[in-house]
Amino acid sequence: MPEKIIGITVKKAENFSEWFTQVVTKAGLADQRYNVQGFIVHMPWAMRIIKQIYRLFEEELERTGHEPVLFPLVIPEENFEREKEHVEGFKPEVFWVTEAGDDKLERKLALRPTSETAFYQMYSLWITSWRDLPLKLYQSVSVYRYEKTTRPFIRGREFLWIEAHDVFATHRQALRQVKEDMENSRKVIWEKLGIPFLFLRRPPWDKFKGAEDTYAADTLVPDGRVLQISSTHDLGQRFAKAFEITYVDKKGKRRYVWQTCYGPGIWRIVAALISVHGDDKGLVLPFDVAPIQVVIIPIYYSDEAKKFVMRKCRRLYLKLKRNGVRSLIDTRDKTPGWKFNDWELKGVPIRFEIGKREIEQGYVTVFRRDLMKREKVEDDKVVDRVFELANEILENLKEKAKKFFESNIVSVKSKKELEKAIKQGKIVKMSFCGREECAEDMREATNGAKVRGTELDFKEGDYGKCVWCGEPAKYIVYVAKAY
Amino acid sequence: MPEKIIGITVKKAENFSEWFTQVVTKAGLADQRYNVQGFIVHMPWAMRIIKQIYRLFEEELERTGHEPVLFPLVIPEENFEREKEHVEGFKPEVFWVTEAGDDKLERKLALRPTSETAFYQMYSLWITSWRDLPLKLYQSVSVYRYEKTTRPFIRGREFLWIEAHDVFATHRQALRQVKEDMENSRKVIWEKLGIPFLFLRRPPWDKFKGAEDTYAADTLVPDGRVLQISSTHDLGQRFAKAFEITYVDKKGKRRYVWQTCYGPGIWRIVAALISVHGDDKGLVLPFDVAPIQVVIIPIYYSDEAKKFVMRKCRRLYLKLKRNGVRSLIDTRDKTPGWKFNDWELKGVPIRFEIGKREIEQGYVTVFRRDLMKREKVEDDKVVDRVFELANEILENLKEKAKKFFESNIVSVKSKKELEKAIKQGKIVKMSFCGREECAEDMREATNGAKVRGTELDFKEGDYGKCVWCGEPAKYIVYVAKAY
Repeated sequence: MPEKIIGITVKKAENFSEWFTQVVTKAGLADQRYNVQGFIVHMPWAMRIIKQIYRLFEEELERTGHEPVLFPLVIPEENFEREKEHVEGFKPEVFWVTEAGDDKLERKLALRPTSETAFYQMYSLWITSWRDLPLKLYQSVSVYRYEKTTRPFIRGREFLWIEAHDVFATHRQALRQVKEDMENSRKVIWEKLGIPFLFLRRPPWDKFKGAEDTYAADTLVPDGRVLQISSTHDLGQRFAKAFEITYVDKKGKRRYVWQTCYGPGIWRIVAALISVHGDDKGLVLPFDVAPIQVVIIPIYYSDEAKKFVMRKCRRLYLKLKRNGVRSLIDTRDKTPGWKFNDWELKGVPIRFEIGKREIEQGYVTVFRRDLMKREKVEDDKVVDRVFELANEILENLKEKAKKFFESNIVSVKSKKELEKAIKQGKIVKMSFCGREECAEDMREATNGAKVRGTELDFKEGDYGKCVWCGEPAKYIVYVAKAY
Repeated sequence: MPEKIIGITVKKAENFSEWFTQVVTKAGLADQRYNVQGFIVHMPWAMRIIKQIYRLFEEELERTGHEPVLFPLVIPEENFEREKEHVEGFKPEVFWVTEAGDDKLERKLALRPTSETAFYQMYSLWITSWRDLPLKLYQSVSVYRYEKTTRPFIRGREFLWIEAHDVFATHRQALRQVKEDMENSRKVIWEKLGIPFLFLRRPPWDKFKGAEDTYAADTLVPDGRVLQISSTHDLGQRFAKAFEITYVDKKGKRRYVWQTCYGPGIWRIVAALISVHGDDKGLVLPFDVAPIQVVIIPIYYSDEAKKFVMRKCRRLYLKLKRNGVRSLIDTRDKTPGWKFNDWELKGVPIRFEIGKREIEQGYVTVFRRDLMKREKVEDDKVVDRVFELANEILENLKEKAKKFFESNIVSVKSKKELEKAIKQGKIVKMSFCGREECAEDMREATNGAKVRGTELDFKEGDYGKCVWCGEPAKYIVYVAKAY
């Protein structure tokens, strides 16, 4: 009797929201039944993917001169209040520790919602001379925000990210860092993970609170909403002045520093991995971040056959291991069909199927998850083929994702076109007046379409009339519904 | 004019406490000036060592069937109260989140002091059948305890550890896990890090609150106090009953599970690394966990020489990198002497010194930190020599540490001998009656000597008279002052 096949029961294109929830649960990424709202249990499969994503970012950050630190989780209320806009922006979202043991604490401690106000008081101690600059530090941590509505990997009261806090002698160097941060995102999120995005300069009303300028990466989720997966901020000298971070320059003059902070949203990148590459069978993982890159399924129907099949499986396993490939022989007491489904659901990029015929004829049946296709590969070519496939899979995922992304960006000339495009889940490119009230009006009228910002090298000019209000347009902006 | 050499200004043997503080600060491990007591900033050098220590433990845990998870930081008060002894033990130490934004929370949330009561409510959902067992999960996280006195890497209100929570069908399997946990500690802490310890079964009054039995590793710090660096607990069925964690066995009968939990104290292991291997010059790191394993110092006194010296340095750097060695060329604008001191302070195990003579004669001056000795190694043998030295250094550190540790364990027959040995900072082995009151009396009279426990395979019997109270002795125990 065939075992019950437990897979995704809805189609991604038909009911994205339910599809996403099922993938999160059934692929073993998260359990949402923990008894505090917005706090999830990160299951092993997610943690193993997340560790790989952290590794990619950290390697890239360290290559460009960042060093790891770990700052305290708790931030005293007084630190928080030193930068006025920052505290106004974040205070409604802060969890407060107020008691310990039987004591009431003398002052409240915030759980970090972001760590500017933890880092920068120390920076004011560490930085005294131009010799101390640049200072580039990052930490890989959870942060805490009192969000009203929550969703695993998209919006949580506890979520994982990296925050890099960099300090420079000049604004020019800080702006160069902003570019480096974007390049860091591009190298990991696009090149290694195959997730396309637009890096946009946010309108002033959508900046990080306390920043002069915010630049953020938006990818598109198939339900027609954009998802911010990374952002970097030109902090100017606001925090420098709030925290008195100064240095003495080569001429002996005391000056305020210039700062940037950068936050790749590890959680959101997991959400994007699921949403962008996943299909009706479940997750589809790029080779580089797959916890298991090649799963080996032994297929036999007698004890005699088992011996030979397992011997070949083990030989292949060791060969892969020697070549640095994360691999597993699935020896669970289940049918091959059940195992195929299970690993397809979990998104393992490559599967070896080893049965009697593979042994007799000296080949391996190699299955690739992205195209759901099998091929025969001679035994002595199989490791080379795995590495070729790793690239082919990534290239295929990138191409598919890019096509989807680009085909969903449309230029509109009228309110009607805009409304139609937004309803169809597109990212809209259009002329815009630049006024917050106009953006607000559009958002309300369209049930959520937001001005996401301008391209990075965009220059203000005369761009005809604002598509929404008809006033003179000074900008070309991207507009979309957003998470 | 020679630059000012900034190093450790006290001797380890003369003023351990001040020595420890100076190493922590001057080697760039931690900054204690953060404005919340007991919360420190982990500086880059410490974070890079800590990442290596985590890697060693995680590899070993995964090899023995554990998988990584991440549970929420916050635990509702109601979970906490389900195991009576546990809550009584930990409640005085808990930080409570009681507010968020402008809201007062309906129920208080604890910052995890340890995560039994977070994990086990989920375990009761996940485990239903014997097929779900064993379940072996771990997380690498910070935990939070409201300690009165704090010290970096020894006792903090925020500190780093791993916690593994394992579940079995039988008590026998659970006890086997306890042994596996000890073996995990031995493999990493002793074999890879060269820190010797005694694994002891704690007396009943010193158990983990909620456990049936606690087994813990004590190392000896040169100030004559032992430091618990790892512990594993036989939880029996206490939490299983408190959280209703049951499984249906092969015969269809519902049974309570058996549990263990294991906690390698990553912070404390850093403290042990500093204390056990460090010397009057600063840190001494084993090769495996050193953030930089080989530092290359170019030595030149003209631009002409610089060109040749840097060329050789870069060639060596690339050769080391290809062989997986973490290396750095120190190009800072400082004298070679200053750099030597700086890297000695930071404990880098191997240094290459490259000057004119090294180029002319085709060799490398190789310095090893543990013995503070130089040797000449021919260019083409230098990578092999690095790997040999990695082992030699570890073996030397182990031998030295073991000798110190073993020479400080003494057997005593009388109260007087005991008092003398404790004053000298020894670990004492002695006959003991087994009564908590006697242990308490001894602790007070000796200004802190505590019964740390018995050896693992120890059997109760007739061991003469208790060294402290003179009553019949049923145990041989280890006694020491402790952190």
